[in-house]
Amino acid sequence: MCELLGMSANIPTDICFSLKGLARRGGEKGPHKDGWGITFYEGKGCRSFKDPMPCCSSPISKLLQDYPIKSQVVIGHIRQANRGRIALENTHPFTRELWGNNWTFAHNGQLTDYEKLDTGNYLPIGQTDSEFAFCYLLAQLAAKYPKKPNKLDEVFQFIKQCADYLNTLGICNLLISDGEYLFAYCSTKLHWLTRRAPFGKAKLLDEDVEIDFKIHTTPSDIVTMIATMPLTSNEIWQAIEVKQAKLFKNGEVIF
Amino acid sequence: MCELLGMSANIPTDICFSLKGLARRGGEKGPHKDGWGITFYEGKGCRSFKDPMPCCSSPISKLLQDYPIKSQVVIGHIRQANRGRIALENTHPFTRELWGNNWTFAHNGQLTDYEKLDTGNYLPIGQTDSEFAFCYLLAQLAAKYPKKPNKLDEVFQFIKQCADYLNTLGICNLLISDGEYLFAYCSTKLHWLTRRAPFGKAKLLDEDVEIDFKIHTTPSDIVTMIATMPLTSNEIWQAIEVKQAKLFKNGEVIF
Repeated sequence: MCELLGMSANIPTDICFSLKGLARRGGEKGPHKDGWGITFYEGKGCRSFKDPMPCCSSPISKLLQDYPIKSQVVIGHIRQANRGRIALENTHPFTRELWGNNWTFAHNGQLTDYEKLDTGNYLPIGQTDSEFAFCYLLAQLAAKYPKKPNKLDEVFQFIKQCADYLNTLGICNLLISDGEYLFAYCSTKLHWLTRRAPFGKAKLLDEDVEIDFKIHTTPSDIVTMIATMPLTSNEIWQAIEVKQAKLFKNGEVIF
Repeated sequence: MCELLGMSANIPTDICFSLKGLARRGGEKGPHKDGWGITFYEGKGCRSFKDPMPCCSSPISKLLQDYPIKSQVVIGHIRQANRGRIALENTHPFTRELWGNNWTFAHNGQLTDYEKLDTGNYLPIGQTDSEFAFCYLLAQLAAKYPKKPNKLDEVFQFIKQCADYLNTLGICNLLISDGEYLFAYCSTKLHWLTRRAPFGKAKLLDEDVEIDFKIHTTPSDIVTMIATMPLTSNEIWQAIEVKQAKLFKNGEVIF
């Protein structure tokens, strides 16, 4: 399987600290050695850094752990391959355009019968069940909403229904974003927490690193983190219930 | 305007040397300080590194100049903004899916009336004339060839016709690739050269760096480089004629 990482914040925020924790699980403290990727949104634009090599030893991952890219939405993924060989085209997150926006997706799980999913105009490039599932989701959205609807909350309710269906095909923990909203669906395990004032210290579970968020934040900052398993040892992470979803925007819970 | 960089090779080859030369033009020895990007294909997959900051001072560019990512097709771009503000969504290269492949595009020039171009199902995300032109090209291809044709040479002849049309709207030097072929259209200036055995030394124009390709290659290697302006001082770069195109595959000229 894999591990997911997500962030939603009300101001551009870097993810260096969390990435440092996750990276150790990418082939060192965890078995997810089959590639990794991370997508940072900056307004309508986004950029992904991807590597089919283990995250723990990747020079690109090392750079990103020390180079603060500030973003309001981030999706990251470390991979333990099941469907689809270890290759760049099978490395999450995947990004495609819908309604003139970049949509980004990452998946932790394994699906059966995914090749039968109707992906419409969105053809998979690689061989993963995950990219098939993403193309399916976008095709469903494009079919139901030929133009971008005004109320995106409703769109994410529809994505929840689609995720429920995908979940009948196997295990389907997923993160998806349009750069503004961040949607998380829990099939088996997914945790989240929101950091806001008064900020305190946080200590990574996987590495002897501590950060004092008071130094790096202003009192109005709101930052929600999502991870397959908690990344810090001294904060209370909430589990999303099985077959439930959470939607975040600007760091706050929408549903 | 901007500068383009392209590579087509018959074996996975790194581009560190050429990027070192181009990077200096990205805000230091040249005025192209408004962002930069580079896309590396590895099989069907590709990964882009992008930055809205100047290439000459970008830590990501610095990493890539020393970290050899081996690829058979590369497209790079340093930007001097005209249409579209300095922002990630306006940073080349642009990548979209067509026929289950990643297509990547970069443009040097400036177009008028580009907002009238029919982009079909490919909606621009940013505000550049370049991304409009790319979406137009893909929409034309999708309309003419609903399924991927067997003979891609013919497809690129059609892209040449579309590029001729775009060129009537202004200046349109462009590079486009599906990961296998690399197509270059010259509107005003674009140069290329092919390196093959016997390999020799090359010296950058923009930086006091020399490389001996004999050490880094095998006798069967064939590597074609494309650049807006020659990158080396001691090699013979050929200019592509105005309103003409070149198609490369595995480092060799197809037309």
